[in-house]
Amino acid sequence: MAVGLKAPGKLLQVKGIRLAASHSGIKADKRLKDLVLIEIPRKANVAAVFTQNKFCAAPVILAKRHLQELTPRFLLINSGNANAGTGLAGIENALSCCQAVADGAAVEPSEVLPFSTGVIAAALPVDEIVAALPGLLEKLDAANWLDAAEGIMTTDTQAKAFSEQLRISGKTVTITGIAKGSGMIKPDMATMLAFVATDAGIEAEHLQPMLKNAVANSFNSITVDGDTSTNDACVFIASGQSGVVIGPEDVDFVAALNRLLLNLAQSIIRDAEGATKFVEIEVQHAASQQDAREVAYTIGQSPLVKTALFASDPNWGRILAAIGRARIDRLDISRVDLFLGDTCLLRNGLPDPLYTEQQGQREMDSEEIRILVSLNQGNEMARIWTSDLSYEYVKVNAEYRS
Amino acid sequence: MAVGLKAPGKLLQVKGIRLAASHSGIKADKRLKDLVLIEIPRKANVAAVFTQNKFCAAPVILAKRHLQELTPRFLLINSGNANAGTGLAGIENALSCCQAVADGAAVEPSEVLPFSTGVIAAALPVDEIVAALPGLLEKLDAANWLDAAEGIMTTDTQAKAFSEQLRISGKTVTITGIAKGSGMIKPDMATMLAFVATDAGIEAEHLQPMLKNAVANSFNSITVDGDTSTNDACVFIASGQSGVVIGPEDVDFVAALNRLLLNLAQSIIRDAEGATKFVEIEVQHAASQQDAREVAYTIGQSPLVKTALFASDPNWGRILAAIGRARIDRLDISRVDLFLGDTCLLRNGLPDPLYTEQQGQREMDSEEIRILVSLNQGNEMARIWTSDLSYEYVKVNAEYRS
Repeated sequence: MAVGLKAPGKLLQVKGIRLAASHSGIKADKRLKDLVLIEIPRKANVAAVFTQNKFCAAPVILAKRHLQELTPRFLLINSGNANAGTGLAGIENALSCCQAVADGAAVEPSEVLPFSTGVIAAALPVDEIVAALPGLLEKLDAANWLDAAEGIMTTDTQAKAFSEQLRISGKTVTITGIAKGSGMIKPDMATMLAFVATDAGIEAEHLQPMLKNAVANSFNSITVDGDTSTNDACVFIASGQSGVVIGPEDVDFVAALNRLLLNLAQSIIRDAEGATKFVEIEVQHAASQQDAREVAYTIGQSPLVKTALFASDPNWGRILAAIGRARIDRLDISRVDLFLGDTCLLRNGLPDPLYTEQQGQREMDSEEIRILVSLNQGNEMARIWTSDLSYEYVKVNAEYRS
Repeated sequence: MAVGLKAPGKLLQVKGIRLAASHSGIKADKRLKDLVLIEIPRKANVAAVFTQNKFCAAPVILAKRHLQELTPRFLLINSGNANAGTGLAGIENALSCCQAVADGAAVEPSEVLPFSTGVIAAALPVDEIVAALPGLLEKLDAANWLDAAEGIMTTDTQAKAFSEQLRISGKTVTITGIAKGSGMIKPDMATMLAFVATDAGIEAEHLQPMLKNAVANSFNSITVDGDTSTNDACVFIASGQSGVVIGPEDVDFVAALNRLLLNLAQSIIRDAEGATKFVEIEVQHAASQQDAREVAYTIGQSPLVKTALFASDPNWGRILAAIGRARIDRLDISRVDLFLGDTCLLRNGLPDPLYTEQQGQREMDSEEIRILVSLNQGNEMARIWTSDLSYEYVKVNAEYRS
């Protein structure tokens, strides 16, 4: 069940970045890749954002620590086990894996960033991972982006990967990124897992804000179930090997980066657990960004709105009820306009007299649905993307560990 | 699907209160009651709390207005139609119904409080309601509590009603209450609909705080789906006809009132849409009440926790992830203890080394489950009740209007 989600198109190599993926034994099915290694060249710059969940996973704790010590040379990512809720043993296990990469590649352990995604509160199978590393190091190749995208999947039904290419100062610059995630999705400062690389050169001082801005309007604007993961991370690598140096003033590059992250984030929603609808919620004319986001998320996380979306039922009273309970102080319902696609439901807080159930049904029958709320209280807006709540969502999550 | 919910026991009459219920034509099935009238004697005092949803329904707006004008003599309640999101026409329709009661019973329209529950954003069928009123007025009887409890049901599978009786100063005092609700449940200051009456005499100045306190730890401590309704209301009537006058110092009476409201609130959770589990979540040793409630609700509203409960899967990493993303500032995970029933999962934020999956499975197999979190940061606590997220929940809400 994925909504309008195509297999990745042609993925462009990023100069200086090599990747490899294989099955190490974490996932039960031997046909499924569960371990990915990404090599970063010397002199690259790396920025990263991580989950705000206070019970963050062992690899998140260790990756943050390593990032403060040295610029990373390797990213080691496993799927099938989150290494979260595992206490001190979890940290030691993640460190053992970093040490094994360091030994094999002649780098420092703190030049390796660990990432994990999968079941929470299960011990990481270190031996399997360590045993698979020599093979991975040998297979490293700039052409392996799709393999890497497949290797980080858990309940995803489709790999998520995009490339952008631009001409800047007469030279070619490439950005390629991969992401995973379809449940426990309400990223907060980062997403489930995403890895984006460019061969542009970007100073460290610009790299982090550039990533943060792009994440704010992409990964941080999606929700499947409101459940912020313990393992979210998004890494942005600038290898510099295209010979082009980029700064925040290069609007075409920034636009391409933002577009790529938005494509990845929307792919997660199109592939959300059990999704049958792809839903955009836009809240306009709010007094603050925070108000706009609060209203959008209250609608997008309402189980009643989500089951109505699943049923293609234009039961828009549930949208109204969600707006009314949103945790904002300044809501004036006599100013609220509400649209489903092009169809007006409410104007100034009152039902549109021209609305017909047939119009509402036509909008709801679509696989891609847009809900537009105007609070008419200010100039701030927010746009988020979400999915519906289906039998399949319950099934996927009830049977996750079985 | 209801969890340990029995049919109402013997309901005791409350001196001065008469009730009647019938089918007026709002619900399609003629065997179902959909209209209830409750008569309140002169000299009674009445307190009420209403939803905090800013898109509150027409009857809520009108009931609040009428309460400020005169002490109510009648409550008119319909099920099957919420008269919410209906604009000015909704107010006029509710007022027409109050006027019809006033005409039939020779009282003022503002002595009638209207209540509605059911589908949002559909026009109230005033003619059917008005036509049914003479029959209802004729049938008014102190013995009709069960009829009234049945008449306010929507997706409820079972009527919810309890009585308490005490001897005070050598006289008998009775409290009887009814409630409805099984979805769109996260009451905020009140519940879906509840009507409680006693024949004690209680001064108006004491009645409202007594109700507010009782509601805080009952209806305001439950959630099915986090969706605060547009129509919540809880009314407390003191007829005074037992000859006993009660004040806040009568701890036995206050305890009986609190117990009755808690029983009604827990009945709503036992009958929650699609519920297969009855779940108590207690958060102890929080720095504030608000922190404790926030953590409890973040767990209780997590779709991932709720699907794990449905599957009887001791996937407690999801509880940990929910605690970690709760919107509180002061969480120190190195102090968090987590128990499932009697089984310790985490101590000081680290997995309990003695925990076994078998223990977790045994706790989860139970129909009644208790999750206990200790933040070890202060002396405040909160206890809430919730249900699981099942296929049946999705079915009930996807098919609600079909």
